Amino acid sequence: MRLPTIALLLCSLACTAQHPLAFAKKSELQAVSRQIARYPILQNSFNDFKQSVDPYLGKDIDVPFPKDPAGGYTHERHKSNYMLVFQAGLLYNLTGDARYAQLVRGILLKYAALNPTLKNHPQATSSSPGHIFWQALNDANWLVYCGMGYDLVQPALSAADRKTIETGAFKPEVDFFTGQLEGWFNLIHNHGVWACAGVGIVGIATDNPAYVKMALYGTKGDGRSGFLAQIDQLFSPDGYYTEGPYYVRYALLPFYLFANALNNAQPGLRIFEHRNQVLRKALHSGLQQTNTDGTFFPFNDDIKDKDFTSNELVSAISIAWKAYGRDTGLLTVASKQNRVGLTEGGAAIAAALSTTKNLSPYYPYTSIRYSDGAKGDEGAVTYLRAGKGKNLTTLGFKYASHGLSHGHFDELNFILFDKGNEVLQDYGSARFVNIEQKWGGRYLPENNAYATQTIAHNTVVVDEQSQFGGEEAAASKWSGEEVFCRFDNPAAQAVLARQKNAYKGVELARGLYLLQLPGRRLVVDIFHVQSGDAHQYDLPFQYNGQLIHTSFPYKASTTTMQTLGRKNGYQFLWKEAEAHVRDTLAQFTFLNGGTYYTISSLVEDSAQLFFTRTGANDPNFNLRREPSYIIRKSGRNRDFISVVEIHGSYNAVTESSSGAVPGVQSIRLLRDGGLTVAQLRVDGKELLVGQCDEGGMPAATHSFNAGGVSLSWSGPFTAVYDGKHL
Amino acid sequence: MRLPTIALLLCSLACTAQHPLAFAKKSELQAVSRQIARYPILQNSFNDFKQSVDPYLGKDIDVPFPKDPAGGYTHERHKSNYMLVFQAGLLYNLTGDARYAQLVRGILLKYAALNPTLKNHPQATSSSPGHIFWQALNDANWLVYCGMGYDLVQPALSAADRKTIETGAFKPEVDFFTGQLEGWFNLIHNHGVWACAGVGIVGIATDNPAYVKMALYGTKGDGRSGFLAQIDQLFSPDGYYTEGPYYVRYALLPFYLFANALNNAQPGLRIFEHRNQVLRKALHSGLQQTNTDGTFFPFNDDIKDKDFTSNELVSAISIAWKAYGRDTGLLTVASKQNRVGLTEGGAAIAAALSTTKNLSPYYPYTSIRYSDGAKGDEGAVTYLRAGKGKNLTTLGFKYASHGLSHGHFDELNFILFDKGNEVLQDYGSARFVNIEQKWGGRYLPENNAYATQTIAHNTVVVDEQSQFGGEEAAASKWSGEEVFCRFDNPAAQAVLARQKNAYKGVELARGLYLLQLPGRRLVVDIFHVQSGDAHQYDLPFQYNGQLIHTSFPYKASTTTMQTLGRKNGYQFLWKEAEAHVRDTLAQFTFLNGGTYYTISSLVEDSAQLFFTRTGANDPNFNLRREPSYIIRKSGRNRDFISVVEIHGSYNAVTESSSGAVPGVQSIRLLRDGGLTVAQLRVDGKELLVGQCDEGGMPAATHSFNAGGVSLSWSGPFTAVYDGKHL
Repeated sequence: MRLPTIALLLCSLACTAQHPLAFAKKSELQAVSRQIARYPILQNSFNDFKQSVDPYLGKDIDVPFPKDPAGGYTHERHKSNYMLVFQAGLLYNLTGDARYAQLVRGILLKYAALNPTLKNHPQATSSSPGHIFWQALNDANWLVYCGMGYDLVQPALSAADRKTIETGAFKPEVDFFTGQLEGWFNLIHNHGVWACAGVGIVGIATDNPAYVKMALYGTKGDGRSGFLAQIDQLFSPDGYYTEGPYYVRYALLPFYLFANALNNAQPGLRIFEHRNQVLRKALHSGLQQTNTDGTFFPFNDDIKDKDFTSNELVSAISIAWKAYGRDTGLLTVASKQNRVGLTEGGAAIAAALSTTKNLSPYYPYTSIRYSDGAKGDEGAVTYLRAGKGKNLTTLGFKYASHGLSHGHFDELNFILFDKGNEVLQDYGSARFVNIEQKWGGRYLPENNAYATQTIAHNTVVVDEQSQFGGEEAAASKWSGEEVFCRFDNPAAQAVLARQKNAYKGVELARGLYLLQLPGRRLVVDIFHVQSGDAHQYDLPFQYNGQLIHTSFPYKASTTTMQTLGRKNGYQFLWKEAEAHVRDTLAQFTFLNGGTYYTISSLVEDSAQLFFTRTGANDPNFNLRREPSYIIRKSGRNRDFISVVEIHGSYNAVTESSSGAVPGVQSIRLLRDGGLTVAQLRVDGKELLVGQCDEGGMPAATHSFNAGGVSLSWSGPFTAVYDGKHL
Repeated sequence: MRLPTIALLLCSLACTAQHPLAFAKKSELQAVSRQIARYPILQNSFNDFKQSVDPYLGKDIDVPFPKDPAGGYTHERHKSNYMLVFQAGLLYNLTGDARYAQLVRGILLKYAALNPTLKNHPQATSSSPGHIFWQALNDANWLVYCGMGYDLVQPALSAADRKTIETGAFKPEVDFFTGQLEGWFNLIHNHGVWACAGVGIVGIATDNPAYVKMALYGTKGDGRSGFLAQIDQLFSPDGYYTEGPYYVRYALLPFYLFANALNNAQPGLRIFEHRNQVLRKALHSGLQQTNTDGTFFPFNDDIKDKDFTSNELVSAISIAWKAYGRDTGLLTVASKQNRVGLTEGGAAIAAALSTTKNLSPYYPYTSIRYSDGAKGDEGAVTYLRAGKGKNLTTLGFKYASHGLSHGHFDELNFILFDKGNEVLQDYGSARFVNIEQKWGGRYLPENNAYATQTIAHNTVVVDEQSQFGGEEAAASKWSGEEVFCRFDNPAAQAVLARQKNAYKGVELARGLYLLQLPGRRLVVDIFHVQSGDAHQYDLPFQYNGQLIHTSFPYKASTTTMQTLGRKNGYQFLWKEAEAHVRDTLAQFTFLNGGTYYTISSLVEDSAQLFFTRTGANDPNFNLRREPSYIIRKSGRNRDFISVVEIHGSYNAVTESSSGAVPGVQSIRLLRDGGLTVAQLRVDGKELLVGQCDEGGMPAATHSFNAGGVSLSWSGPFTAVYDGKHL
């Protein structure tokens, strides 16, 4: 605990602070101002601010009594207001035009009159109600932006105005957060980060060390909560944010805004260096977890259209550039964002963009493993990647911890992106953010009822139950367990993970192999399910695309259609077709974009196959209609071994189709002690994938001899094609 | 009849022809050759040819005995071969490298051995079987390209080789076309155009005036069939091609290739001037009938991914540039195609692109009316357009003739595109072109069974029957009838058309109004159905998007789902939800791309409403899963009056939603004699649309007085908003 040192710093802050300080110092903004006309992207970003703000200059701004849920008038008005306060404050510093400061003053004085009168919002439904908005999270957003905006114009205000605003606009909100909502404020959770950032930034803006202390160390001041605890606990040592890629984007913003403010106010804290630059790592973890089009990978709750051009990442990247220096990957992202922060970092990015030629159109994606948990010991999310540029293939595998309240019951779920298309999907979340007609813009009931359930993912469902009984509390106790993860050889990358606690008495283990054969790329998926008792196991593949061919006959629903099940998400699935197969290689080819994909699955003994589509029991049309292909097996111990093969191409403009037939011709699965070997025939040649089920020492050698296959290798796995190690 | 003159020309051709001639003359190709290195786009186009052909140089090319359907090996091999013959022939002239000529010679000699042995293709299923391919159409493609390729290398071949090829490779195909397939050859149809182009080009290439004569005037030489009759009858005077936009692209190619060959061989024919440059008009009609992304509008059979960058239009545009001169619209299209023909026209386009700055990213789309029928008296297809650039709205309305064998039963169908998105769709056709696993790449059974049926469109279905009993022969007798069409005022454009013969004893009349109000664009749709007997009337809106809100309660299918009907396309529709409504304004809002759309419909008395989705009775997953919103009314005379309103915006990245609530608040429909007035309340103001049901004289004045509304106007319609004429 560094409390004594910090206390001293806080004191010195209170005595010496000059404003502006929280968002940027005067000298920084003066330097930015001089560069605006020099770089088009900086000029455009400045113009965007002016276009947003100038129509309000000299106008009376409505600060309505809070009434509406997300998407409604008062909600949108208050959102616009806090952004206006911040943007006008910044423009005041960049232009010197006093009208901007007057605008900020006018709005904040209205809040100073309003806020002391507020109780819980009439539309509040959550356990953390807001005053100005339906949920406290939005109030925290308000505090962050109004705090920065106030700080930016503070020197232009009279002492009386300052007092009115500080006691009328800010104090009621800070008191509300740290009093009535104390438990929420002290949460280690993205809402808590916003709350601490809000209170801390207001503390810096109003020279109130008590606020800053609560923000850094929690209301009790013991450091068990507050911003530093959040940085320590919400990211893994690799910078992974446990709620997932969609939320790291959102969480990064208060982390970066408050860290930036702290760095200005308390440089001695060296906040950007904290935990080996974990804030830098967190930013890059967010960017690595995107598709080539910049959209975030849909693990856990995720809005699929959201991408890295969102405002949060514009701000974060400009701050990171100043804090950590030049970074080519960030430059690519900034060029797609096509705007920069109006800060030293943003101006530097604008300058770098103006002199950088042949900038890569893609962020530098790599195969990467992100440990989860504050100590990095709660499983991981691993991305295996092959190919380059447009031709990139990404396999994402989740065997991390649950992901707090935005987590899904999806241990050992994998997703597949190829050539920018989502080939095996995760539904993401059921929500229309800020569309008032859709449940006030909040998470829809179908989010819990369907999108978070195991059947909505690409992992085994036991007895039509979700993992951990669908209970967040239970799921939060157990992360996945990595057996091995290796991606040093681009031609053969592998990860094997287990989850023994998702279902009582059932052990799940899945090995995924991304292999580059000559002229063909494929994923070998060895999913081993073990139990002392008999169960029903369903393995869904949430394919995206149009069915082209199956190797098996099936019976389609023609004039009536039923649901696949009755609960745990199954009630949302229409059963479009089903098949009963026995001792076969079940192959299913679909077309997505211009590429064919085939899932080839070994069926030993018997299996049922289903084609389903979401939309049943969806009386408000809240779900997209998405297809799934489900393999069902019953018994105690069962293997699901499948190959997802990327093959051929189709071009509708030239009407040319090639390679539409899969190369996989047979699959066998063999075991010898703790070793598993998949023997495949691909394009007439033998492919062997050897797996050491327990991983073992990196350099240990293994000898497999069973079912007529002899194979020796060192390390946790091997892949041999046509007699040659890949 | 100009037969005597032509006979003389043919004679002179036989006596004096120098080759190459059919695709281009030697001097033209020499000039192109000199410019290749000068323009990147020309160089790239040349390189593309070389990359296609060079790997085959010196190789033995497989000319297999025909066996496979479309997409199969022999099909694709023969397709590649004819393109190789043409491309190598062209490269021989551009480079002077004799190896290209040798390649052409080798392939054609193999065909000279093969073709005399061929009977009907083993996979032939159509009434016009091919020899080399499953259908004669592909054989005609072969004849066109091999004819041009042969012509290009002819001077390099020995007399013996020439004879072998002419009698072995070409004569059996020409004899087959003009003998066994004479009826097909003489059809006025796109297959016939290819057949005539093939025989004609071979005639020019082999100095055989008899072939050219058959190609120009039909096998009987009487001009009732053949190429000139095809030009005269397949296009309307406006250049509209009756099969629709997808097929004009395809049909244009043989028209342009053969016209170009004729222009070289018989310039006196002035073929490009024929019928007031109808070939130029036809090309532009194809381009005007595209979405802003270049995809063709889906009237009649249509593959939705197909766009104007297809090879057919690259060739046609290069030929048109030479024939008709510079055209900025074509330049935009050429820049999207990013390649040009290796001809004088292509080189000129490359030169123009290199010097043109600020080229519009969009073809110059306008509101336009295309009459159908050789005489222009068989109805029309009209496009009303508002807005510019990305913000373009296009309403397409079909009241033309059926469209031959590729026509759909969709009289008075309309489609709506907005901001590049398909908002109210036409399914297009059910086909995976050249994907062998999908019915050999041919039209799927679901094309006739669903895609062509009336219920798959946005027009009234009577008694769950398709128009004209779903019989092409009956449909071909009756086109729609235009009452008026006016688009001189961009703020208020209108078209009214009728169809009295689609259903016995039922008259259909639909007026469509594309209106630009201040800040709001909408379509008013007044569909009047009249009959002496009681019927059931269904008006579907094939909306694309996600349901956001309805003003009416409905009952959704939750645990089981049934089809909407049993035949005429209804058997493919799952009934996702239904509602019974009475005396109300039924409003349904959906989100597509970043825009909200609301269909507001007046219900007087009662109506049933359905939400359906395709996919029932589709055992091979041949159909896309597409939604529809259907309004059902029963009675004798019924009006469907709806407003399709474009409003608001949603941005998932910024999470901002605005204008999500429609502006239309009420609708009334009033009649006074032959006048109809729709009285609407939009954004609190009155909108009146007055329609003269019989059109009347352009300058006639009308006085309406009924239901408390008094309105006077001149001309066939008026639109008044907030007391002002739009």
